[in-house]
Amino acid sequence: MRVALAQFNAVVGDLAGNAQKMRRIYALALESGVDLLVFPELAVCGYPPEDLLHKRHFLHDNRLILEKFAADCPDKTIIVGFAEEYQDDIYNSAAVLGAGKINKIYRKGMLPNYGVFDERRYFQPGSEPVIIKLDGLNVAITICFDIWNIEWLRGFLKDLGPIDMILNISASPFHLGKIERRQELVGRCAKEFGCAVAYCNLIGGQDELIFDGRSMFADSTGSVVAKARAFDEDLLIAEVAAAANGTVGVEPAMPSAPQPRDLLDEVYQALVLGTRDYARKNGFQKVLLGLSGGIDSSVTAAVAVAALGPENVVGITMPSQFNSPETKSDAEKLAKNLGIEFFTIPIEPMLKRFDGALKAVPGWNSDGIAYENLQARIRGCILMSLSNQSGSLVLTTGNKSETAVGYTTLYGDTAGGFAVIKDVPKTLVYQLAEHINKIAGKQIIPADVITREPSAELRPDQKDSDSLPDYDLLDEILKGYVEEDKSARQLIESGLDKKLVRKVIRMVDRNEYKRRLSPPGIRITPKAFGKDRRLPITNHYTSGTDAT
Amino acid sequence: MRVALAQFNAVVGDLAGNAQKMRRIYALALESGVDLLVFPELAVCGYPPEDLLHKRHFLHDNRLILEKFAADCPDKTIIVGFAEEYQDDIYNSAAVLGAGKINKIYRKGMLPNYGVFDERRYFQPGSEPVIIKLDGLNVAITICFDIWNIEWLRGFLKDLGPIDMILNISASPFHLGKIERRQELVGRCAKEFGCAVAYCNLIGGQDELIFDGRSMFADSTGSVVAKARAFDEDLLIAEVAAAANGTVGVEPAMPSAPQPRDLLDEVYQALVLGTRDYARKNGFQKVLLGLSGGIDSSVTAAVAVAALGPENVVGITMPSQFNSPETKSDAEKLAKNLGIEFFTIPIEPMLKRFDGALKAVPGWNSDGIAYENLQARIRGCILMSLSNQSGSLVLTTGNKSETAVGYTTLYGDTAGGFAVIKDVPKTLVYQLAEHINKIAGKQIIPADVITREPSAELRPDQKDSDSLPDYDLLDEILKGYVEEDKSARQLIESGLDKKLVRKVIRMVDRNEYKRRLSPPGIRITPKAFGKDRRLPITNHYTSGTDAT
Repeated sequence: MRVALAQFNAVVGDLAGNAQKMRRIYALALESGVDLLVFPELAVCGYPPEDLLHKRHFLHDNRLILEKFAADCPDKTIIVGFAEEYQDDIYNSAAVLGAGKINKIYRKGMLPNYGVFDERRYFQPGSEPVIIKLDGLNVAITICFDIWNIEWLRGFLKDLGPIDMILNISASPFHLGKIERRQELVGRCAKEFGCAVAYCNLIGGQDELIFDGRSMFADSTGSVVAKARAFDEDLLIAEVAAAANGTVGVEPAMPSAPQPRDLLDEVYQALVLGTRDYARKNGFQKVLLGLSGGIDSSVTAAVAVAALGPENVVGITMPSQFNSPETKSDAEKLAKNLGIEFFTIPIEPMLKRFDGALKAVPGWNSDGIAYENLQARIRGCILMSLSNQSGSLVLTTGNKSETAVGYTTLYGDTAGGFAVIKDVPKTLVYQLAEHINKIAGKQIIPADVITREPSAELRPDQKDSDSLPDYDLLDEILKGYVEEDKSARQLIESGLDKKLVRKVIRMVDRNEYKRRLSPPGIRITPKAFGKDRRLPITNHYTSGTDAT
Repeated sequence: MRVALAQFNAVVGDLAGNAQKMRRIYALALESGVDLLVFPELAVCGYPPEDLLHKRHFLHDNRLILEKFAADCPDKTIIVGFAEEYQDDIYNSAAVLGAGKINKIYRKGMLPNYGVFDERRYFQPGSEPVIIKLDGLNVAITICFDIWNIEWLRGFLKDLGPIDMILNISASPFHLGKIERRQELVGRCAKEFGCAVAYCNLIGGQDELIFDGRSMFADSTGSVVAKARAFDEDLLIAEVAAAANGTVGVEPAMPSAPQPRDLLDEVYQALVLGTRDYARKNGFQKVLLGLSGGIDSSVTAAVAVAALGPENVVGITMPSQFNSPETKSDAEKLAKNLGIEFFTIPIEPMLKRFDGALKAVPGWNSDGIAYENLQARIRGCILMSLSNQSGSLVLTTGNKSETAVGYTTLYGDTAGGFAVIKDVPKTLVYQLAEHINKIAGKQIIPADVITREPSAELRPDQKDSDSLPDYDLLDEILKGYVEEDKSARQLIESGLDKKLVRKVIRMVDRNEYKRRLSPPGIRITPKAFGKDRRLPITNHYTSGTDAT
């Protein structure tokens, strides 16, 4: 049996557009002599549709589109995910199409409701396994999380008799290193059930989430024998055949696609896809961003250029009296290296007027933190005005380390539409800069930008290290506290400095409000500052006290 | 049996503080000769603790605090909600305390996972009912949502034998008119099981949520015979006694507390409590806000004064050349009526400089929408700078109608920390203004502010009606589309203008990003723009097409 896994970039809510893409893929599959064509989880409506699922008309439209697609593509067996309204409940379902109709429906049994997932908010769990017979093979249909608990799956499938292939349609979001987990899982599942596994994952950026594709086939020994592209659309085809001895073999129809060379490359590709899809899917042709001559804005600009092309990226440098000649010239150099439009708008004239006007209120201090942050706010104002005028998207440039501790100005450097490196710790930003230069084969990000001591340049001779610990140390604490939910005591017991741990935890806790008011950004770690981390703003608990 | 329902303002995460409050209430209950003292759902840790529940040390601390509280208060039977870690799962539990220990634990069976609720994200459902015998009475313990499905509850409690009282500890968030639902439910429950019902609800503001208290007792005929205060702490005490004929009577120990006089008064009290608690619980002594002389900022200021006192509210008016003398003098008049500090900072000097500087980028237009919005952004900059300097909280003043259609400037008038009337439709803002004047017994909000045609005053002779339909009509469409998830077709079929409906729906859909980047605000309707409405930003679906 010739099986094709169609990992494509389904857009949330674009029912007609998604169906149109699927029709084109169907035509390709016909040409390739495919017997079974597979699309990802909720491919008809995109993933995750969130509260669109509360609109009856949305569910209705998604059903109509599916039926029309079935009628348009009658000549093959097709499996495709859609949102199903059935007897007043909603299911995350897979339709089996053939001969112009919906012939069978499988309803997802295991609904994830953790991390970024809210499936129990919308769906009822299904309770009936579905097996289809194709070309002499018994194919069991599963959806995403169904295969993540093999214990449960064993019970669920136990009365079905022999299974030759488990098909899994997924919308499994990316984070660093997750592909290893997935591959291991798919292999284990194949081995456990002594059958082939065909795993079809979505690709594309959807707000903070990246779906990375990398659909795959495993044979019944558990080895993954074919893998589709990462972070791109692909059609992965293989022949699946049962042997007389009970094993099930998989013969790929083409060599496996090249994969990211390392974890750094994964992050880079995820950021590029995330930026491209957020801009394009939201109707932005161009983006603009402030270039300070620092590492964060430099990396963000390079990612934007890779995502959208240099002709669609505009850099604005907005120097004050506190910016060194070196950073100013580095901003310009970077823009030149990237080949992007570049403008300079000095902020001193506005700064002076604000400073004068704010003196109307007793207590205003022209030499304090509010004055420092005012500079960032004027820059935010400039970028938002230009965005407003040109219809471009403003990219913010804050990294995960400073977002975590609130080393940002609310409505200043956080003002914008999309935060490209929001989930990238500062230490990883440096590595990305090197990576960007390496893959370009030349210096895109100036050497000085990488080696200079980081500074916000909001007062004379300011350095990040005046306010923050060394970034290696900070990132270690943040990984433990934010990503692993460790307590102060655990971190201190692991050898970190007590005072420092408490200081950092206090900073993270106190700045929840700033994060809540900042733009969404691309998730690349197991826990970003997005839907996967839902802490109250009003919160008197501190993980940094002696009790804990 | 003398039962006391202690509706108190538990702060999320303030384990020690909540326990301290409970100890004080215990002392009062002792004096009043109470046999059974009841605290709300998750009283130990506050509701909702959200992802604090993912921290093991938080769960551990909350258990320690509970055990200490039990030891400190040994002389009565106490029921109190806490987050329980048990065999590697987490439960939303009620502890039965007495003689210094935890004697029994009931685990919530029905976990809401809709609207603002995410309980399936954290908790496992319990499956064992718990009944305790007190003073000869059989008391079944339930938690919040357990009694919202009486069908389920009947099955759950069916093997327990006769029940004299159902006790329900709740953290039931307020929305307009919800008290009617609750009362009906409590009454029905009492009737259905032929027993008394004691319902103990939380009070307080927690980010966007308001808990309104109004704890109550119903007797076995189903009538609510005692009700605690709304939007305030209270200790509601009654004698519960079974009669020989099988009925259970409830004798209140005091007359019922006065209740809000009407729905308008409910909304007003909710806004006052929400503003006070957001400020106080987040450590703000003072708030500041921009006063335009318009209705929204006037109502917001009046609410803030009621919440925090006139000495803690600062009004800033920031006129441009487009503000009429009337609005300027109305802003001042309002500040005087409220007795608050008031400053004037004209924005023209900054506006001129920005306008000049922005000409550095081709395409800048000193006469377009970006220029209009720049004025709002300069104002945002001023308020955030003053907030930064003084440590005051900036209140934003946008109403639900303009928030819905995006008739706001991102990082301009949406810049701030808390959005007091974010969930109040414009038509209701007008009613609130009248209400505020009525309860003051004098004109607080100047008559002109209420009668003048609304305008953003960002260009000469601008009126809201240039861009928006009449607010009566707009609010009707928004209620249908936003709160009731109706389609364009349904709204048009109900008699609304086709073109207008489509235009409004398009505006709502397109401005999801602005809402996502705006501060939290107080929820007063069944569906606000908060945790209860989770729409993707990237979304190609439109409810306004012909197909739907």
